[in-house]
Amino acid sequence: MRIFSTLVFPRRQQQIFNLRQFQTTTILRNPISIAPIQIRMDAEQSLRQSLSEKSSSVEAQGNAVRALKASRAAKPEIDAAIEQLNKLKLEKSAVEKELQSIISSSGNGSLNREAFRKAVVNTLERRLFYIPSFKIYSGVAGLFDYGPPGCAIKSNVLSFWRQHFILEENMLEVDCPCVTPEVVLKASGHVDKFTDLMVKDEKTGTCYRADHLLKDYCTEKLEKDLTISAEKAAELKDVLAVMEDFSPEQLGAKIKEYGITAPDTKNPLSDPYPFNLMFQTSIGPSGLIPGYMRPETAQGIFVNFKDLYYYNGKKLPFAAAQIGQAFRNEISPRQGLLRVREFTLAEIEHFVDPENKSHPKFSDVAKLEFLMFPREEQMSGQSAKKLCLGEAVAKGTVNNETLGYFIGRVYLFLTRLGIDKERLRFRQHLANEMAHYAADCWDAEIESSYGWIECVGIADRSAYDLRAHSDKSGVPLVAEEKFAEPKEVEKLVITPVKKELGLAFKGNQKNVVESLEAMNEEEAMEMKASLESKGEVEFYVCTLNKTVSIKKNMVSISKEKKKEHQRVFTPSVIEPSFGIGRIIYCLYEHCFSTRPSKAGDEQLNLFRFPPLVAPIKCTVFPLVQNQQFEEAAKVISKELASVGISHKIDITGTSIGKRYARTDELGVPFAITVDSETSVTIRERDSKDQVRVSLKEAASVVSSVAEGKMTWQDVWASFPHHSSAAADE
Amino acid sequence: MRIFSTLVFPRRQQQIFNLRQFQTTTILRNPISIAPIQIRMDAEQSLRQSLSEKSSSVEAQGNAVRALKASRAAKPEIDAAIEQLNKLKLEKSAVEKELQSIISSSGNGSLNREAFRKAVVNTLERRLFYIPSFKIYSGVAGLFDYGPPGCAIKSNVLSFWRQHFILEENMLEVDCPCVTPEVVLKASGHVDKFTDLMVKDEKTGTCYRADHLLKDYCTEKLEKDLTISAEKAAELKDVLAVMEDFSPEQLGAKIKEYGITAPDTKNPLSDPYPFNLMFQTSIGPSGLIPGYMRPETAQGIFVNFKDLYYYNGKKLPFAAAQIGQAFRNEISPRQGLLRVREFTLAEIEHFVDPENKSHPKFSDVAKLEFLMFPREEQMSGQSAKKLCLGEAVAKGTVNNETLGYFIGRVYLFLTRLGIDKERLRFRQHLANEMAHYAADCWDAEIESSYGWIECVGIADRSAYDLRAHSDKSGVPLVAEEKFAEPKEVEKLVITPVKKELGLAFKGNQKNVVESLEAMNEEEAMEMKASLESKGEVEFYVCTLNKTVSIKKNMVSISKEKKKEHQRVFTPSVIEPSFGIGRIIYCLYEHCFSTRPSKAGDEQLNLFRFPPLVAPIKCTVFPLVQNQQFEEAAKVISKELASVGISHKIDITGTSIGKRYARTDELGVPFAITVDSETSVTIRERDSKDQVRVSLKEAASVVSSVAEGKMTWQDVWASFPHHSSAAADE
Repeated sequence: MRIFSTLVFPRRQQQIFNLRQFQTTTILRNPISIAPIQIRMDAEQSLRQSLSEKSSSVEAQGNAVRALKASRAAKPEIDAAIEQLNKLKLEKSAVEKELQSIISSSGNGSLNREAFRKAVVNTLERRLFYIPSFKIYSGVAGLFDYGPPGCAIKSNVLSFWRQHFILEENMLEVDCPCVTPEVVLKASGHVDKFTDLMVKDEKTGTCYRADHLLKDYCTEKLEKDLTISAEKAAELKDVLAVMEDFSPEQLGAKIKEYGITAPDTKNPLSDPYPFNLMFQTSIGPSGLIPGYMRPETAQGIFVNFKDLYYYNGKKLPFAAAQIGQAFRNEISPRQGLLRVREFTLAEIEHFVDPENKSHPKFSDVAKLEFLMFPREEQMSGQSAKKLCLGEAVAKGTVNNETLGYFIGRVYLFLTRLGIDKERLRFRQHLANEMAHYAADCWDAEIESSYGWIECVGIADRSAYDLRAHSDKSGVPLVAEEKFAEPKEVEKLVITPVKKELGLAFKGNQKNVVESLEAMNEEEAMEMKASLESKGEVEFYVCTLNKTVSIKKNMVSISKEKKKEHQRVFTPSVIEPSFGIGRIIYCLYEHCFSTRPSKAGDEQLNLFRFPPLVAPIKCTVFPLVQNQQFEEAAKVISKELASVGISHKIDITGTSIGKRYARTDELGVPFAITVDSETSVTIRERDSKDQVRVSLKEAASVVSSVAEGKMTWQDVWASFPHHSSAAADE
Repeated sequence: MRIFSTLVFPRRQQQIFNLRQFQTTTILRNPISIAPIQIRMDAEQSLRQSLSEKSSSVEAQGNAVRALKASRAAKPEIDAAIEQLNKLKLEKSAVEKELQSIISSSGNGSLNREAFRKAVVNTLERRLFYIPSFKIYSGVAGLFDYGPPGCAIKSNVLSFWRQHFILEENMLEVDCPCVTPEVVLKASGHVDKFTDLMVKDEKTGTCYRADHLLKDYCTEKLEKDLTISAEKAAELKDVLAVMEDFSPEQLGAKIKEYGITAPDTKNPLSDPYPFNLMFQTSIGPSGLIPGYMRPETAQGIFVNFKDLYYYNGKKLPFAAAQIGQAFRNEISPRQGLLRVREFTLAEIEHFVDPENKSHPKFSDVAKLEFLMFPREEQMSGQSAKKLCLGEAVAKGTVNNETLGYFIGRVYLFLTRLGIDKERLRFRQHLANEMAHYAADCWDAEIESSYGWIECVGIADRSAYDLRAHSDKSGVPLVAEEKFAEPKEVEKLVITPVKKELGLAFKGNQKNVVESLEAMNEEEAMEMKASLESKGEVEFYVCTLNKTVSIKKNMVSISKEKKKEHQRVFTPSVIEPSFGIGRIIYCLYEHCFSTRPSKAGDEQLNLFRFPPLVAPIKCTVFPLVQNQQFEEAAKVISKELASVGISHKIDITGTSIGKRYARTDELGVPFAITVDSETSVTIRERDSKDQVRVSLKEAASVVSSVAEGKMTWQDVWASFPHHSSAAADE
């Protein structure tokens, strides 16, 4: 009996895959979810109302003034009316200002946020943290290179990921190709459902994402047009809130209704139609084997389940993990480094017995407390709040221990990288966001200048993926539990009588058979009773979307007792999936800050990266250009290299203050300055404190503190302090 | 003046790119190159000659016997003739056997090599070092997954690569996308020239690599057909030796001449035609921006040269490096893990002043001695020999110090990984293998069961790549050398008179102008003299492939003195390029060995990986299943995880000997066996020696020896030895 082949058709898959793309969760998308926003929205609405009333009053008073003048009324009467008009105009203008300010301070549009982002991005681009790819050929939207410091940070983040997840949890790492034959992505649903809705400029053929155009229209109206009524504003907000659930037809209708045209040409637009986001290619020389660049790394793990299960000694639970490139041919990439066409994913598939999702190490994370945003709080308009993870699991807020364990481990991972724990929350998916087969889903969202960004998705996807590949390939992807003693079990047996069904339903026979076989015990026993009492029963076949009439001779339903020696089942999979580029971008924003130069005449940038992720751990500066100092610097450099501490020597004659500023901007946590042949100073970036250490010890002190074997406080307590008033300028 | 735009057209590029694919250097490809092979070939030729004579003798004697019988000769006479016939038959059969044995021991065909490979590959596949990708869907040729141990080895190799090259040499690492727009690969030459020759089955359309079919035909004839004449054998060998230089027409002619048909159907084949090996795709939704999956990572570095040069403070030399996936849509992938459609490359582009290719750290590698195979030795039929690197550079065998430095560093890298230094050689490219612009090229070749495999290419590519992208993008990719004092220089100035040239050559004007501008000093001064004496000169325009007549009024040539403050030049690039998958496969073969089980009843496999690359550094075994030992094992496990030592606990009740055998087969170098609550044994894989260490020290001892801080000899000298006769069985 292939129970899940028909009933569990991935009906909400399009939406789910959109979510798997890590869409930005903007505040506007869940307008009811954050209390201060709700208050602001109420205020906005009443201001729009008030503005509209004031406008009417001004207009009415204007007319009154004109009427008085036309009737040659007495001057004092006219003056009084004009005074009243001016008063009303002032009032209107005050309301306008208030409305403008409330709009521009709201959500993503904030000027402050944009100015901050600009400062971060300028620094990142100038110091080659990233480079728009193929820049000398004018670049390609949505493709970025990591330059040297960005590359070092990525490598550090991935090393730590391997240590924190793969090594500490004994996961099985695999590494599969990006080129993937169609059949695999057909089974996973990507070929049919991994789409975004697109519209075309009817004259030039330029393509746009349909929802982006509608979103831009609504946002701009709300932000810039003060004349729209409170009702209109509420409507636009409602559209923004629900547009993700729009069908192509609904989206097309709204675009027509609002008269939205192509942004560049103002030409009319086509109806929205789905565009598959996978990069397509062809494998081999014949052109006959279609393939795609994988849109996620997970499928490579699922298709290897059987081998990995054997490798693990046929024991559950176990986890497999993969780090690698994934590709999504976005229609029109926006949001800089957050929505790109090629990116690094790190994914874990933790396979577990669906009947036992406890986790032996859950107690290690049970006491953690951090911002969580359960479904109920979102629905009732409350905000995210600090919860104890152990309690959240105990109360059933988080579905099970294993899911909870990974939420805790992700929290530890992100905060150890340097993500601010006050700007990190775990948001539970609402019922309508989740695939019907998913047991529970939580996203680690990080707040950035673009709003709250989904950076890690942690989903209990039940048995969906393994079943999909079992069905398509015919290879059972199952686990076994051997019983200590054989068990007697009562099993539901549904036997469709194919001959009768064939006569009755012809070409639809297969759908009917599959639907019958897919009934659960309750449905089946109900049908059995009805058939026995009435001889016939109406039955809804979901894959045909109609009701058919089933007669007694078409199916036999019974319960049989059997002795079983083992239980064969499809494991559930719990999937933490990390968008590495997004995490790194948010880390840039959280670590970026500025401080005045000593002279106070300029603001200096710095990245407060923890040593764990800092691109270079240490710089080595000879204080002045002379051979002895440079030789000493080389000795230190060689020692640092031999213990694997990335570093850079800077022998330029620039002032030491300027050299510090330069490395602060790269986020280098420590600087060794060689100012004698026997001892050096070590400076810490954030405090600007300096200690004096012998030349011989310098490399080992920096290596200990860079690798977390000691803290800067330990260093500060162990070595003489060096105060150099002139140094930092 | 764009000097290099016309003259340096990449005329031999196709061949070069084929070489950049790391083609197997088989012995047959360079039949003159290895002395023992030469001797074997002489022997083979004389045996074929002798076999043909013996066959004639047998036939003649057979006729003689039949004649005697027919003429009813005396019985003793007939018996003597028969005896002589039998003697001749025996002699023929002896020659046949000898020929068979010399053929089957030669080159790649060796049965021993195949049996060895089979044993390695079986072990690799059974223990999930690799898995054919998408196996449950019958797989895709040329795509492989790394399973858990393979993945760990790859990650170790790449970490060490980063440490050995990027960190120790302060290289600038970048990370560029795989999706690449067409213009970039047009500039690099890949769109036009990155092809292999293909033939199609004229009836079924199945595609084959043309050279593979010809090679298979020749090899099979030589190996299996003992009747071919010595002349024919020599001809086939000659074809094998030179076929890489065949034009499509020559290849097609040979295929026709030998009557080669489609291997599967025996249908006739099409003429050979070029098939581009890049996976093509389309960027963005319009379908109008063609793109490819990059065939190498190098181009991403070249297009970023300008930014990287500024990042490096406008100083030369500096190196940039990139690790990443590359893609080649092979026509018909063979040789298992060696020729695949997606693979990891690690590439370095070291940019250097073409006028100064010295290297400050060359002395660090100058004393190294290893197998080198210079051009001359290959041409004169000698074999590779041990040379001192410093001398090879001093004598000019290796073109320059920087190239020599990288050869030395590559040698250190490969041997530290565990590549056998006796099966590693550096082979210089022959003149006809090299691009015309390349100054010198050396391949690190590793001997495997497939023959000598090119695993690292180290090429001085001069200024070719930067110039190609400068030309295509219009962005100058150059470096500057500021002079301490302005220099007076004499500069060649070629000024084509475009009006006159346009009148004379119309549409060809541009080609003529570019060829004139591209003349070097000698050519230009010769033209000037001729024009002054004769008023007219014949001039070959290579891009038109014809000679045109240049008159005095069409070009002015002069030398002018100028004061220059700086020198602007295109840097040379020295490119070490590592095929990571190939290195790993060769490492598997070099580390694989077998040894008898203690009972002597079976051969046990083991991989003698150095700890540096071993997939798991240590296993932890409770000797018997009890709670105390398992608790102790968990404590050790936690300590190992905290210091980043990958390990595995095995608590199965299997005998300790079997558990050792299982981990030997994965190449785990150390095993900790918990047989008391206070102390444990540590066993070393290769020697099977064991020491006794306290429970507390166990993790730190293993971590020290696994990370190379101490050797096993140190451990052996420091701790009491543990002899357990029963342990290893």
